[in-house]
Amino acid sequence: MLPQWIIERKREGNELSADEIRFFIEGFTEGSIPDYQMSALAMAICFQGMTPAETAALTTEMMLSGETIDPASLPGIKADKHSTGGIGDKTSLILAPLAAACGLTVPMISGRGLGITGGTLDKLESIPGYRTNLSEKEFFQTLENVGCSIIGQTAQLAPADKKLYALRDVTGTVPSIPLITASIMSKKLAEGLDTLVLDVKWGKGAFMKTREEARQLAQAMVDVGRAMDKKVRALITDMNQPLGRAAGNVLEVQECIEVLRGGGPDDLRELTVALTAHMLELSNVHKTNAEIFQCLENGTAMKKFEEMVAAQGGSTDWKFAAAKIQEPVLAPADGIVTTVDADLIGKACLVLGAGRQKTDDTIDHAVGIGQMKKPGEEVKKGDSLAVIFSNDRNCFDESLPMVGNAFELGDHFEPQPLVCEVVG
Amino acid sequence: MLPQWIIERKREGNELSADEIRFFIEGFTEGSIPDYQMSALAMAICFQGMTPAETAALTTEMMLSGETIDPASLPGIKADKHSTGGIGDKTSLILAPLAAACGLTVPMISGRGLGITGGTLDKLESIPGYRTNLSEKEFFQTLENVGCSIIGQTAQLAPADKKLYALRDVTGTVPSIPLITASIMSKKLAEGLDTLVLDVKWGKGAFMKTREEARQLAQAMVDVGRAMDKKVRALITDMNQPLGRAAGNVLEVQECIEVLRGGGPDDLRELTVALTAHMLELSNVHKTNAEIFQCLENGTAMKKFEEMVAAQGGSTDWKFAAAKIQEPVLAPADGIVTTVDADLIGKACLVLGAGRQKTDDTIDHAVGIGQMKKPGEEVKKGDSLAVIFSNDRNCFDESLPMVGNAFELGDHFEPQPLVCEVVG
Repeated sequence: MLPQWIIERKREGNELSADEIRFFIEGFTEGSIPDYQMSALAMAICFQGMTPAETAALTTEMMLSGETIDPASLPGIKADKHSTGGIGDKTSLILAPLAAACGLTVPMISGRGLGITGGTLDKLESIPGYRTNLSEKEFFQTLENVGCSIIGQTAQLAPADKKLYALRDVTGTVPSIPLITASIMSKKLAEGLDTLVLDVKWGKGAFMKTREEARQLAQAMVDVGRAMDKKVRALITDMNQPLGRAAGNVLEVQECIEVLRGGGPDDLRELTVALTAHMLELSNVHKTNAEIFQCLENGTAMKKFEEMVAAQGGSTDWKFAAAKIQEPVLAPADGIVTTVDADLIGKACLVLGAGRQKTDDTIDHAVGIGQMKKPGEEVKKGDSLAVIFSNDRNCFDESLPMVGNAFELGDHFEPQPLVCEVVG
Repeated sequence: MLPQWIIERKREGNELSADEIRFFIEGFTEGSIPDYQMSALAMAICFQGMTPAETAALTTEMMLSGETIDPASLPGIKADKHSTGGIGDKTSLILAPLAAACGLTVPMISGRGLGITGGTLDKLESIPGYRTNLSEKEFFQTLENVGCSIIGQTAQLAPADKKLYALRDVTGTVPSIPLITASIMSKKLAEGLDTLVLDVKWGKGAFMKTREEARQLAQAMVDVGRAMDKKVRALITDMNQPLGRAAGNVLEVQECIEVLRGGGPDDLRELTVALTAHMLELSNVHKTNAEIFQCLENGTAMKKFEEMVAAQGGSTDWKFAAAKIQEPVLAPADGIVTTVDADLIGKACLVLGAGRQKTDDTIDHAVGIGQMKKPGEEVKKGDSLAVIFSNDRNCFDESLPMVGNAFELGDHFEPQPLVCEVVG
């Protein structure tokens, strides 16, 4: 078996066998198959796709390329959620303690942000002292004591994915549903989960621009989960508008705390509860939405959050770095907000320094866009549409028209459902 | 400009600009663009193709990646021929001295064989002492004194092609018309030619399996020639049967000498004269086919061949290494030869050691298949269909059924034209 024969077979549109995929991924992980063969195969996959069986085999081999976590010794059902990312998408910070408050164990391994969408680890690191690099022992201890823990990916977890992800980024081979599926699922399933809920976002602020693409990705991930005997369900959700009223690390943590205290924006609270409800249902834990809401209102979820942050070294006095410049963007006329362009808000956040354009960029936790008006809300000329938080006047000036242009005013607004579809 | 942006644009089916192609090939040649980006682009090109303008830009950049030869100081029109390769295709050894005898200057830079098709350099190296690695000074001197010289590619000639060719071989990106076109044309046009005739073969013993594929490659090469202001013409020729009666290095040189002495197989002589006639016409040298034939019959072409071989250090006593085993393959019945499968003959030659399966294989010049019956010839049961030349009994035994199966006998034969079409 030569690597180029496998590449040729995929180029010609054939289905690769599990043995061929194992041979390729093992060789790539250990270095006997060089990057230039992997990138050629990845490009062939971009064009020819993969069958569910191939995608499952690829996911399995990438998962088995490193260590896997076995939380069987921990109490309860092990459940997690993964989102494909969006502007203002901060549900993980609420969902993990909320699901723990409802009785699940949530061993969440998260990533950093790249491009316009923020990363859960970056958000958590705006809490002074919070450590994302727990040892496995500390991770397990936190899970046992609190019920949830959010940490970063270790070098030992799915190293083939780490290597392939970096390679795809520089070889134009990112947008491939089987490659995206294997990347997400190999890491998540290495956590040794019982159940997994996926939030697959589509729209202007998401990686998948159309609902159809999101549906394909959702189906591919659910298929892989099934092939690997896991309970997996995907929600297809609308990411044309930012989620909540804040985008930017500190601002998003503050918004999460609002929700965990029973308040916060409706859309963020509703989506988080919907994801949690599906996770509980998949895990055979019977709770009504009202009971889940109650965990937010009665403070039990917030208590879990405080315990988790404290267990991971973070300060729970909720004092955050504040941006020097905090100035509003004003409505140019009277009207109803009809849309807030998530892509433009994301790009404005990048300009302000809230995200990374390259993996080694440093980020400024304090900056971002806050207090955004939501579609359907009425404004008068001169009212604030949003507040820009910045530490640099030039960045502020550059972001100002972007934020302004993100808001469209009209005289009529038709609400769209946030959760469009459930797959699996 | 980032390399991955260019890869993405090609993946999406866009036309790359000459600047983008220059940036990529320059970077690849100097090493700032790594192999894994080049292989991903090559795979995207396999799927999306290239426009004539892109192919011309790619050819130009690959040609300019190294030194080019400027034979302007030499007398006469500089002309060359390139064949895409086939079983028993030995026309270069006859054509170069024949065209020189007709007044052209033929600076021919050739390659080695890989896979079932033999290489011109390998054939010439079966002449004891023949040097394929002349310095540019020696090359020019031979061209000036003799009118033709056949040498190997130097490291300085089109290094981007050398690097890309090796990479394509191991990344499943060989069968792409624009990549094949740029590879062939960048090397040939680096010779500083005025005119170029291409022999694009299709059929069982050729790289292009169908006439349509051959036509596409021919058109792409003619288009590139036109874009680069060169006179280029392509003949599409049938390679379902081996050319001539011999395949294998020494056997082929001996057959070339027969043709250069006015004899030899009809198909080989006719194709060589046809290619030479087109080359002369393109170069505005007016000779009838009869006049070209005469150069074979009156010994002037043979004289040129002897002069070239002597100038390059080769012995002209025409004594060659002989194979230890020389045994015939017998006809199993009476009949007319209806077909000789070129692919099987090529594979039998590989088994005997006449060719290379990998680039670092060594070859045995003495072995091969000779005295092949041609389609249309009648045989009686027990007559020789061909003679296998081997230095190893096991190899002989392995090749015997292959050669036997290559010959089909019937009761009727419909001759097919050797030159199917002329492009350009």
